[in-house]
Amino acid sequence: MKCSRDLTPIFEPHSVAVIGASREPHKLGHILVSNIIKGGYKGKLYPINQKVPDILGLKTYSSLMNLQDEVDLAIIVTPASTVPDLMRECAHKKVKAVVVISGGFGEIGEDGRARQQEVARIARDAGILLLGPSCQGVSNPYANLCATWPLNVVKGNIAIISQSGSVAGAFQSWAEQERIGLSKLIDPGIRADIDEAELIEYLANDPRTKVIALYTEGLLRAREFLETSKKVTEQKPMIVLKGGRTRSGAKAALSHTQSLAGKDEIYTGAFKQAGAIRTMTLEEFYDSSKAFSLLDLPKRQSVLIVTTSGGLGILALDTCEDLNIPLAQLSDEAERKLKAALTGVTTIGNPLDLADRGLVPETYLDIANIIAGEEIGVSLLIFGDPVDDTPRIATEFKARTKTQVVVAYLGGGELELQDRYKIQELGVPVYSSPERAIKAISNIIFYQLRRKKKSEYERSSSQRFT
Amino acid sequence: MKCSRDLTPIFEPHSVAVIGASREPHKLGHILVSNIIKGGYKGKLYPINQKVPDILGLKTYSSLMNLQDEVDLAIIVTPASTVPDLMRECAHKKVKAVVVISGGFGEIGEDGRARQQEVARIARDAGILLLGPSCQGVSNPYANLCATWPLNVVKGNIAIISQSGSVAGAFQSWAEQERIGLSKLIDPGIRADIDEAELIEYLANDPRTKVIALYTEGLLRAREFLETSKKVTEQKPMIVLKGGRTRSGAKAALSHTQSLAGKDEIYTGAFKQAGAIRTMTLEEFYDSSKAFSLLDLPKRQSVLIVTTSGGLGILALDTCEDLNIPLAQLSDEAERKLKAALTGVTTIGNPLDLADRGLVPETYLDIANIIAGEEIGVSLLIFGDPVDDTPRIATEFKARTKTQVVVAYLGGGELELQDRYKIQELGVPVYSSPERAIKAISNIIFYQLRRKKKSEYERSSSQRFT
Repeated sequence: MKCSRDLTPIFEPHSVAVIGASREPHKLGHILVSNIIKGGYKGKLYPINQKVPDILGLKTYSSLMNLQDEVDLAIIVTPASTVPDLMRECAHKKVKAVVVISGGFGEIGEDGRARQQEVARIARDAGILLLGPSCQGVSNPYANLCATWPLNVVKGNIAIISQSGSVAGAFQSWAEQERIGLSKLIDPGIRADIDEAELIEYLANDPRTKVIALYTEGLLRAREFLETSKKVTEQKPMIVLKGGRTRSGAKAALSHTQSLAGKDEIYTGAFKQAGAIRTMTLEEFYDSSKAFSLLDLPKRQSVLIVTTSGGLGILALDTCEDLNIPLAQLSDEAERKLKAALTGVTTIGNPLDLADRGLVPETYLDIANIIAGEEIGVSLLIFGDPVDDTPRIATEFKARTKTQVVVAYLGGGELELQDRYKIQELGVPVYSSPERAIKAISNIIFYQLRRKKKSEYERSSSQRFT
Repeated sequence: MKCSRDLTPIFEPHSVAVIGASREPHKLGHILVSNIIKGGYKGKLYPINQKVPDILGLKTYSSLMNLQDEVDLAIIVTPASTVPDLMRECAHKKVKAVVVISGGFGEIGEDGRARQQEVARIARDAGILLLGPSCQGVSNPYANLCATWPLNVVKGNIAIISQSGSVAGAFQSWAEQERIGLSKLIDPGIRADIDEAELIEYLANDPRTKVIALYTEGLLRAREFLETSKKVTEQKPMIVLKGGRTRSGAKAALSHTQSLAGKDEIYTGAFKQAGAIRTMTLEEFYDSSKAFSLLDLPKRQSVLIVTTSGGLGILALDTCEDLNIPLAQLSDEAERKLKAALTGVTTIGNPLDLADRGLVPETYLDIANIIAGEEIGVSLLIFGDPVDDTPRIATEFKARTKTQVVVAYLGGGELELQDRYKIQELGVPVYSSPERAIKAISNIIFYQLRRKKKSEYERSSSQRFT
């Protein structure tokens, strides 16, 4: 996809200036310099501060104008009133991109709005890429760039765009804790210049990004978003969470990020047209992004449930039926072979309720061999009790059945927690309840179904006209 | 409430025999003896095993009949075919209660059903309390009794009754990890004798139990359950999770626990009449039980949201409106005072979006002083970033406002995780997302509203007739 502007200077700058850098540990001007250093940034870093000679061991400059070298990216954290003049300095200095962290623009009313327009105009006239204002910055672990907080260094393939720094922060901390990582973290703030449509376009071409996760409180250029998204979601899944779905939520969104939330039905329709996967809670937003991050698209749209626990299998089943997910049907031959192999197991079918036999790792490998040729898209393995060797079970099951494998792992202590991380490092997503696992699977299956339908539609259309 | 039978021998036995005790670490007969010892059981413990002289340092007996002492509770883990004879021995020996862990009864078909009826008849004729068969046992941390697995020793005030051992196990492990603990854990299995109605009746009179959490796949004596529950839920909240809500789930439930799930609308009606709080996922089941465990019932049915993050506040608001939870309205005077105290905070209202001011602990105490007299039932504090001193903030906020306080804590590392546990140890429930927090709050508010309506109805009825 051809991009309108090249956003590279934001994500891979050769030099960064932090305007408003500080020695005081609690100030954002300090945290940003510190995180850029801790993130292992390899380019030139210039703290701009008029009062102190150095910050965190780096020489400071009293102003951008006193800097001889070129600056690709400037991060501004000074009070709003100083930003227009600083932006003029950036223009003069031919800075390529500016991230305005500072708040006090459109979100505070008339005065702020005028200031925002001024800043945007300066940027536009100078050809500066502007992210923000009122944002939490940007991070690209693949360029060792962490111009945001919390510290984000774990590499992954999910790019999160979030108008809320805390939504991004929560997402990032879950991903870090689970060792999933991110490819990019971007807070476009109140979007005086760069908006979601442009960011999505950039991420479509980013080879590090497999999944785009978007938290928005309302879109600015809905038409551009829709046109871009339609193309992007043909290549990469886009998971969205919309804040301000309800009347009271929309009112709060207006004052938070100046987002005109609009009627929620319009967003429902727009996301559907855009081919985006809409999630309804922060947890589902993360869970589904994780599933798309780790899994390939399943070859078939059906689920096999293999469980150590009857009860947990039933909860998974209930959720499948709620969400209208097809259950895989095993062939008579497979059922016969399973019956022979699993003596003592009373319920052969889907779910395959292994009870105590599920505590023996070899059971899963036997099952995998038997069902290898069956019509199954996704296998959900539910470990209702601590089971030995689950990382090996999960990967072997995946290799032998050639299905997409998802694990729901409940209970256990520190040892089991470490196993869960290991399973995920081996590319199998793990969830803490059967319902969360099925919900994430459903989003994968429906994304795949929609693509399939679309390509069939296109095939039949092209046949018609040739 | 007067109970039909005294279940004390199950929960506070003076002596326990494990029939089918084993030296092999993976066998249930070993795990049970081991967990009873590790649980710190103070009474007499007799492992019954014909082959080895001792297990885990305890002298074994070849049969119950060779035991001189009295046995209050016998746990049977031997193959199903041996159970009827063993039950006869229990009757002969005047054992007061028997827990049959062994499977191979009603759930395996006709033969099993006959065996189950035989066992139930022997128990009934001998006046033995029978829990199970096909169950995962019982545990009472207050009597240092853990005749189940996983090891359950953390004391709390939630009693869980679960037909699925793994559902109970997952619940237990979450409660243990979060240091909430349980008052009882009971798996009634396929309920040849003791069923949910009788257990609930017992728990209503148990001073250690504040909340009853019930996972069921279908009720046996629906009328008795309903009559008992109506009375119990006037005293204590009962949270239910029903497995087999859907057609396919119900089919699986029939083979899992011989539960005739019946039409789900009937259960919806029955739970409502029973005054129970129905939850729809395992996570909500746990989250709501935790809220009832830690909170008192709020004096008013309204929520104030105080947040460090606009986005997370908006997600909480959306959930409030989804669930129809009233938002607290601050008085003009309180808003005026808040405006004066919180310079720089742009949005004074509900949600109270503190942004950076929320990183300063004193901010919360100032707010608490100002809103102390306001009409607020529950205060939700959302920490979207790591904040210092959150345990003190939460407890001081609670003490000063006299509201019920709930925390949503997102992000952070090990230090923040420890803070979350500390907050909960101080009696304030913590959730990992705003939606989960609001969902749990909604169940508290609606339980309270229903009780209020009921008592108003009763008051007006009594006025009418006096």
